[in-house]
Amino acid sequence: MFQPPRGTRDFLPDEMYKRNWVLDRIRSVFEAYGYEPLGTPAFESWEMLKVKSGEDVINQIYYFKDKSDRELGLRFEWTTSLIRVISSHRELPKPFKRYAIGPVWRYERPSEKRFREFYQADIDIVGVSDPVADTEILAVAVDCFKAIGFDDFIIRLNDRRLLEAILETSGIRVEDPLEVFRIIDKIDKIGESGVREELTKIGASERSIYFILELTSKKGDPSQILDETRTRLGGNEKGINAIDILSTIVDYASYYGIASSIKIDLGLARGLDYYTGPVFEILAKGYEDYGSIAGGGRYDKVVEIYGGEPTPMTGIALGIERIVPLLEKKGVFKNIDLGIETFVVAISESVLPTAIEIVQILRRAGIPTDFDHLKRNLSKQLNLANRKGVKTAVIVGERELIDGMVIIRNMKTREQREIKLENLLEEFR
Amino acid sequence: MFQPPRGTRDFLPDEMYKRNWVLDRIRSVFEAYGYEPLGTPAFESWEMLKVKSGEDVINQIYYFKDKSDRELGLRFEWTTSLIRVISSHRELPKPFKRYAIGPVWRYERPSEKRFREFYQADIDIVGVSDPVADTEILAVAVDCFKAIGFDDFIIRLNDRRLLEAILETSGIRVEDPLEVFRIIDKIDKIGESGVREELTKIGASERSIYFILELTSKKGDPSQILDETRTRLGGNEKGINAIDILSTIVDYASYYGIASSIKIDLGLARGLDYYTGPVFEILAKGYEDYGSIAGGGRYDKVVEIYGGEPTPMTGIALGIERIVPLLEKKGVFKNIDLGIETFVVAISESVLPTAIEIVQILRRAGIPTDFDHLKRNLSKQLNLANRKGVKTAVIVGERELIDGMVIIRNMKTREQREIKLENLLEEFR
Repeated sequence: MFQPPRGTRDFLPDEMYKRNWVLDRIRSVFEAYGYEPLGTPAFESWEMLKVKSGEDVINQIYYFKDKSDRELGLRFEWTTSLIRVISSHRELPKPFKRYAIGPVWRYERPSEKRFREFYQADIDIVGVSDPVADTEILAVAVDCFKAIGFDDFIIRLNDRRLLEAILETSGIRVEDPLEVFRIIDKIDKIGESGVREELTKIGASERSIYFILELTSKKGDPSQILDETRTRLGGNEKGINAIDILSTIVDYASYYGIASSIKIDLGLARGLDYYTGPVFEILAKGYEDYGSIAGGGRYDKVVEIYGGEPTPMTGIALGIERIVPLLEKKGVFKNIDLGIETFVVAISESVLPTAIEIVQILRRAGIPTDFDHLKRNLSKQLNLANRKGVKTAVIVGERELIDGMVIIRNMKTREQREIKLENLLEEFR
Repeated sequence: MFQPPRGTRDFLPDEMYKRNWVLDRIRSVFEAYGYEPLGTPAFESWEMLKVKSGEDVINQIYYFKDKSDRELGLRFEWTTSLIRVISSHRELPKPFKRYAIGPVWRYERPSEKRFREFYQADIDIVGVSDPVADTEILAVAVDCFKAIGFDDFIIRLNDRRLLEAILETSGIRVEDPLEVFRIIDKIDKIGESGVREELTKIGASERSIYFILELTSKKGDPSQILDETRTRLGGNEKGINAIDILSTIVDYASYYGIASSIKIDLGLARGLDYYTGPVFEILAKGYEDYGSIAGGGRYDKVVEIYGGEPTPMTGIALGIERIVPLLEKKGVFKNIDLGIETFVVAISESVLPTAIEIVQILRRAGIPTDFDHLKRNLSKQLNLANRKGVKTAVIVGERELIDGMVIIRNMKTREQREIKLENLLEEFR
């Protein structure tokens, strides 16, 4: 028997209803915020994918050649394709706010939480360097999460330049600050002693390490952390500037109605190499152990690498594969009606034509309705309706039809009553 | 500058809004008919894909190996994955009615109408041999097309076994009737003389060819064609049986409310080799030259090939890439509001905080709303709003705010009036 390829999954209807419900709600919020859909192919030229992605990511890309030996790769995130579009469609009016929702593919070791095909919901603002854009990105994400049943959040916020300033002030000498960021990023996995060890390995002095660890462990209330940090940076201009930006984000956050969730976290680095300013992650309160449910940041230099005009960009990706199991755990789906609502039961084959006509009336009024295509007996039809979680059955019998009546059955209470066929639609409204 | 790979396309927002509108409406109709979503991966094992597809299709599959040398291929249609799921999930209750909407990939020579990545909306009924299933499949498709703005249709209907019966009765001797079907299928391209020539080449007698061409050219009103054909088949049991099935479909079609569109077309073969019963295509009336906008049929033998239990199946695929340009041609999109509705204009930077708060009130009420993130002047903001096709602007000015008022501007008529800020949401309801 054939199985889905390793690391990929089938979603049977029960699961798909939930996923679609989540994706639909997220899309509605994206559109309420004025984000516009952009469609790009599932695969891109290998050359293009290589430009932006670091060595780690390149190894995760599904690579193949088409029959003309053209080198291609499946998209491993949504942003690369957006950047390609931005670089080549200079006519697109800025600011350009776009969303994309769908699968991306990475060749990683599959685990219970990690898949080779997984969904991302991505939003980006193109052409705005003001931190109002970063703030809005956070507000959209928060409103998406509220729309699908999360209540409370922790927004971890930092700025890449602030991290760089911390390194500069610490006196550490490294060619690539990213190397240090990646080490800091691992603190939850390898602990403070692990970070200390790795930093020593790349030549950091004990004093630098102490300074770096002290500052990057600061997290909490924005104004307090930012004030404290400002005094520690000894006038480092890049750092002071980053602190001002973060303060502005906190101000905007209050207009956007998300200020209470924001926590500055000077240890947040985010592994990807292209971030140039604010970086952020969102966690669901009470479910912090499950990791972030969204993450992103500002990347103002990437479009140039692709040959485009300098273009500020900021964005976030919502991790659908983390979100759906969390919602399940929270019991959100229990209170939502998914699937078909109404089932029309034909008591005998002679009334099947009328039953089908009734089915069609309901369907054409937009009411999800089905009937038994196998022409089974009454109790089997009601069983099928029950199994499908149907709320109401319309029972069509010969005797009732003569008087222009049908029976309405509440599937839960099993109460039945006759109504006039002509009042059927009214009954459902 | 990087481009999308050959044969694939980017869809900028204007185009995506339309595509999403079409796909959303189709999905609503699918769900109204009780079809359930099923999710399967974008790629499948090569071994699996090979089983069902003929030589022609195999050559069109995007084939690749993953980093463990696992042979994979991108899906080239939705049905193969459905069959895999059916074969391996025997616990799925039958009838199982499923839909799938999304991209499939074929390595074909790209043209204006043919792409290497294209969308299909697919529905199938699993587990019902009664022709009520085939009829419902046609009804869903018709209702989808009505929901997106088509008015009238031609449903071309035939049965594979009827075609086989015609060959048998004609006296032609071929090992593989499919070869003859494929020749007949080409009649629109190569004409009657071309078909005659090719049939002669494979050894058909003049008499056989005459009989085949005479019968397969019959098309039109069901009862007339079916009656005529019945008398010509000289008691061929398979043929008579197929005619009965087609008559039953015509009967059901009247209960489903689609009878007037059905035309029997004895020349319809459909190239794919796995059909076992009724086959059908739908054309939009007035746009017949553009070819079919949906096509499908019954395939009762395929699950067994995959090692599953014998399972009757019937289904149809709607060709989104044909549908969208036709709707454009019909002017359907002109009458639909797509994109954002409301734009909030801040007259000066000092009112920006309040403007953002107003934006958030509207967005959280589900009203697609945006503002200018670049803090430009009034006329530039109104220009941006116009370019985005916004209907209403909310202008936030210092003077008005003091009195708790904002200005509502009808972007079309340019009429402005002041309203109380507290009445804003009411204004939009």
